[in-house]
Amino acid sequence: MEKQGIGKIALLLAITNSDDEKLKKYYENKNYVVYKGQAGSMDSKKIIASIETAAYRENIIKDNYYEEHSLYHATIEALSGYCRGQVMLGEVLRSAGLTFTIVKGSLIDGDESSGNWIAVVLYGQIGSPRKGFEHEAIGMGIQPI
Amino acid sequence: MEKQGIGKIALLLAITNSDDEKLKKYYENKNYVVYKGQAGSMDSKKIIASIETAAYRENIIKDNYYEEHSLYHATIEALSGYCRGQVMLGEVLRSAGLTFTIVKGSLIDGDESSGNWIAVVLYGQIGSPRKGFEHEAIGMGIQPI
Amino acid sequence: MEKQGIGKIALLLAITNSDDEKLKKYYENKNYVVYKGQAGSMDSKKIIASIETAAYRENIIKDNYYEEHSLYHATIEALSGYCRGQVMLGEVLRSAGLTFTIVKGSLIDGDESSGNWIAVVLYGQIGSPRKGFEHEAIGMGIQPI
Amino acid sequence: MEKQGIGKIALLLAITNSDDEKLKKYYENKNYVVYKGQAGSMDSKKIIASIETAAYRENIIKDNYYEEHSLYHATIEALSGYCRGQVMLGEVLRSAGLTFTIVKGSLIDGDESSGNWIAVVLYGQIGSPRKGFEHEAIGMGIQPI
Amino acid sequence: MEKQGIGKIALLLAITNSDDEKLKKYYENKNYVVYKGQAGSMDSKKIIASIETAAYRENIIKDNYYEEHSLYHATIEALSGYCRGQVMLGEVLRSAGLTFTIVKGSLIDGDESSGNWIAVVLYGQIGSPRKGFEHEAIGMGIQPI
Amino acid sequence: MEKQGIGKIALLLAITNSDDEKLKKYYENKNYVVYKGQAGSMDSKKIIASIETAAYRENIIKDNYYEEHSLYHATIEALSGYCRGQVMLGEVLRSAGLTFTIVKGSLIDGDESSGNWIAVVLYGQIGSPRKGFEHEAIGMGIQPI
Repeated sequence: MEKQGIGKIALLLAITNSDDEKLKKYYENKNYVVYKGQAGSMDSKKIIASIETAAYRENIIKDNYYEEHSLYHATIEALSGYCRGQVMLGEVLRSAGLTFTIVKGSLIDGDESSGNWIAVVLYGQIGSPRKGFEHEAIGMGIQPI
Repeated sequence: MEKQGIGKIALLLAITNSDDEKLKKYYENKNYVVYKGQAGSMDSKKIIASIETAAYRENIIKDNYYEEHSLYHATIEALSGYCRGQVMLGEVLRSAGLTFTIVKGSLIDGDESSGNWIAVVLYGQIGSPRKGFEHEAIGMGIQPI
Repeated sequence: MEKQGIGKIALLLAITNSDDEKLKKYYENKNYVVYKGQAGSMDSKKIIASIETAAYRENIIKDNYYEEHSLYHATIEALSGYCRGQVMLGEVLRSAGLTFTIVKGSLIDGDESSGNWIAVVLYGQIGSPRKGFEHEAIGMGIQPI
Repeated sequence: MEKQGIGKIALLLAITNSDDEKLKKYYENKNYVVYKGQAGSMDSKKIIASIETAAYRENIIKDNYYEEHSLYHATIEALSGYCRGQVMLGEVLRSAGLTFTIVKGSLIDGDESSGNWIAVVLYGQIGSPRKGFEHEAIGMGIQPI
Repeated sequence: MEKQGIGKIALLLAITNSDDEKLKKYYENKNYVVYKGQAGSMDSKKIIASIETAAYRENIIKDNYYEEHSLYHATIEALSGYCRGQVMLGEVLRSAGLTFTIVKGSLIDGDESSGNWIAVVLYGQIGSPRKGFEHEAIGMGIQPI
Repeated sequence: MEKQGIGKIALLLAITNSDDEKLKKYYENKNYVVYKGQAGSMDSKKIIASIETAAYRENIIKDNYYEEHSLYHATIEALSGYCRGQVMLGEVLRSAGLTFTIVKGSLIDGDESSGNWIAVVLYGQIGSPRKGFEHEAIGMGIQPI
């Protein structure tokens, strides 16, 4: 049977609406820390700040630079994927409304030797700041923590 | 009930292993064209070529520049998200092994007024050209066609 | 005789001062929609908004997401070329004053089988927000519509 | 009357087919050095090399690093505009066939106090390495020399 | 004995705290113009403006576009190296506090035939806008002037 | 007295020629792992591979993905700073000949609570693949390990 990675856990949780609690419980029982939140803005730094604030509040990362640096880089990589290149929203007249997930645990489910990693996924809409003039986007960043 | 976008169809199919055929049938019955394939290389252009070749062979796009241009841009956007910024693999000593999905149909499931779009998703591993020295990555591009 | 592309029409109109009306008439008679406007700002999103506003007001694009998406991508590509890389103005202490042209019609003049495309050209000055401390720049984006 | 910049000279020469010799003569009489050539490849470095080779052969730049550096940066900026972002051709499965122009002289025609500058323009086709699956692109770089 | 470049002068001065005056004197006696200043902001354009203001005030560059253009490009290259890619600070929720050095003179110390160049170095901290949540960064740009 | 960061150690070692052994000893006594090597190529991946090979051979990183990932990201950031933007050498007809340093230890000298980090510095020449047609460049990446 194929090994499951930390990324797929964060992805499944981000794109699923119905089974949130069941999915979270399932992976928490496998020693993953799992969080799902919402953010929306034309201002990239507000989206980054929402994720960081949630990570501190939920004790996903400890209050030290070492862990904050990992979360920050995972978030920027996710945002870069979401924006497909240049990490810009309002500067190029577009807006994002998204669900983010943060998952912390071993890189490969069931393989503790793979070390402790953090995955951030952003999934939602990107487009004009106008209802219906937007399409879906996704981005994921994975870093050792 | 929330409307489902073309992107989520391509994402679900890309990250799911077990229910491929069921998922494909389900969305084909809703008038989506759905394809799932594999590609792996240190050479970005081979991955792009694999997707294009599959799209022609499966008649997902017609053999004209108009449709080829849409597929190409969706693919490049997906690859840019997968690489999180610069679209490079071997040039920076990394390799990708991935599943790609191509979905064509209305932007919003059940809303034909949203027009005809194409979504390309790449999901897989990225890392050193060495077994186990890699982590997951994802990218998606969506274009009108 | 060489076939003329939609891009050259947009380019000629953008860099010519004297024969505007004559050029516009000439290409309108060949079934192209042709528009020329001005924009200037240290704020990229204002330039993008000027182009979009003009396109709606002049009925160059219809008020749907499908066409707006094409115009937006053509505009961002033009701005990326104008900025030569990162799509930034005031963020890196520079300003742009420019003429923009929008042309809609077949990709190749006289070849209707090439489909319906939109070309956006930006031509003007870029530089310090200080008179005389600037040089010329150009950018063009072309998308199916 | 509006002042004409070095960029417009390079642009006009690049997109005009019929009046090459007349245009060249006209600007050579105003003390500009003017050159027009062709290059085509999937390999960016071959296009850069073609421009540099022509510049040396035609004595547009002297054989020193100071002038070569200016030409190189003007060329890379032009190529970045042509590619609209990442300076890649074959790496992302696309090819370019283009006309390039090099113009050297004062930044503003008739204003010698504006100093000696070099402009490089690339104008041509970009797209799949397949006949007819391509559209126009343009890029310009301007540097003091 | 190895030739020393203008970049190393700017680098040494930027990362050394104790011997500033001695180093400056030493290179001023070799006909280099040498300046060291401080800047800190979440706003890239303020850092660029600080460097430009210092360069004018200290008569490192003359008040013409030709020299300002060289300084600007050297500064942007330094900032691009400092940011490692996209030239963004506050937009991605980070801040910089840095020492900058500007050095003008021959590319190679003692080799006047190498022409007149300008080097800009930025060295300092980059990170969250929060004490201790930051690490060092460096960037250098070199342009003919 | 100002605290010294891991980056400055890597920078000093990279730009100093005379006191290599003395500097290395000095920081090894403070519990830093310190390495200095050479690499030169038109091919980015060869430079990345040289650094990785040295890091394994000298036991700077352990043979696991967790540590390799940190080194890789620090190297790519250093290379991105060295190239000032797009991580390309031969693709844009330029070459690099450089000294690299790898330093592992606490982020702040004498402050073990700052955790274990790795710094990679590249310092050398970049330019045409032709003697004397090149100038200096620098880049640094810092990652937790």
